[in-house]
Amino acid sequence: MTNSKPPLYTALSPALLHLYDVSHAIVVIIDVLRATSTIATALFNGAKCVIPVDSVSRCIELGRQIDGITAGERDGMIAEGLEHGNSPFEYPREFIGGKTLVLTTTNGTKLLHMALDRGAGQIITGSFPNLGAVCRYLLSQNQPVVLACAAWKDRINIEDLLFAGAVIHQVKDSFAINCDSSQIAETLYLDAKADLFEFMKAKNASHYHRLNGYGLEKDIRYCLTPDVAGVLPLYENGKLIVL
Amino acid sequence: MTNSKPPLYTALSPALLHLYDVSHAIVVIIDVLRATSTIATALFNGAKCVIPVDSVSRCIELGRQIDGITAGERDGMIAEGLEHGNSPFEYPREFIGGKTLVLTTTNGTKLLHMALDRGAGQIITGSFPNLGAVCRYLLSQNQPVVLACAAWKDRINIEDLLFAGAVIHQVKDSFAINCDSSQIAETLYLDAKADLFEFMKAKNASHYHRLNGYGLEKDIRYCLTPDVAGVLPLYENGKLIVL
Repeated sequence: MTNSKPPLYTALSPALLHLYDVSHAIVVIIDVLRATSTIATALFNGAKCVIPVDSVSRCIELGRQIDGITAGERDGMIAEGLEHGNSPFEYPREFIGGKTLVLTTTNGTKLLHMALDRGAGQIITGSFPNLGAVCRYLLSQNQPVVLACAAWKDRINIEDLLFAGAVIHQVKDSFAINCDSSQIAETLYLDAKADLFEFMKAKNASHYHRLNGYGLEKDIRYCLTPDVAGVLPLYENGKLIVL
Repeated sequence: MTNSKPPLYTALSPALLHLYDVSHAIVVIIDVLRATSTIATALFNGAKCVIPVDSVSRCIELGRQIDGITAGERDGMIAEGLEHGNSPFEYPREFIGGKTLVLTTTNGTKLLHMALDRGAGQIITGSFPNLGAVCRYLLSQNQPVVLACAAWKDRINIEDLLFAGAVIHQVKDSFAINCDSSQIAETLYLDAKADLFEFMKAKNASHYHRLNGYGLEKDIRYCLTPDVAGVLPLYENGKLIVL
């Protein structure tokens, strides 16, 4: 029985993605603070699609061409030349419904393009707001999985690890997990799950520190809340759409 | 006060070492199973020095030139052409006392050379058998520290992370730690410290699995035992010597 289960691996940084075979795998892009939380939220609130692009100039150019909403950040702030930032609260239904969001971020959208370049079988995005949807999809597919953490400029971060751990905790019985990074992620998640926000604070997580310094505690709390934007963003033909 | 503390970072894989400035730092090479445990043990048992080399051919060549004992492994087994393996139990005092050990291993000695190439300020080696000696040294120096995990072919492993966590737990009040990897390491160590061996087993750690499959439970237990070979191996002029 064990041998028939597909493998699951966790890459804790984009700099480690090359260690895993993504070509026949579902790659889950994880950028908890805040790209993939914002993607789930915008789609949950009725965005037609989200187009992830890997540079600010491409974001501006494409936004003009398709009359989309350009958004993104560099180093946690709205990037120059873009209209909107990377906060899920910027995308309520009355604003984003029926529109196309063109998004570029420091880590998350770059990682997505990296997975694409490496020939990923399928790409979806994951965050606490759509945790349940991600888990249900992985359980339904019976395919190899790579949980790919966006990290911060290749440095491992706690919140992406915690999300990977949350997924693993829910799906592990259906996968063969021979991966220390996955074990580390699940163990840390079990330590943290009673109160993810307090855990981030207690551990002085670098991203907690950075965003809290910008007055974004509300964003952090939202991005650590499971299942408040229960959609599955799937990458297809250059766009993230709701499956 | 806080600002005057030197920084401490943890690189959980050689593939992440480039993210940290090692040029003014003490780099602690960590390869718990088994290179750095064996280095501490050989030196504790009176070896004159340990010369880490990064290839089997260089190991054989140098062994001949200086009449040293050649040792090392590739993929956990004694490498072809070498006399001895990577088990600390191969180096009791009556055998290794006064001799020079020329050692090459899959991950540990490679990482040491990587740190050297990147201009590391100082290089020492750490393992549970010499945990206390490492911590005392770091506390005495008041210098930046990079805890560098050897991992397994760049994949993060639990045991190197646990050792990093054990060091951090002992020294953290004297360092500025803005590093999620370090927080992750200490948290995991605190989960594991009551029984490191059982933790490795319960988490099905990949290296536990690999070495246990070779009948090396005794090695694993020894390599997780603190302070049974309390020396500080310092890299100087191409050799690891006892400081």
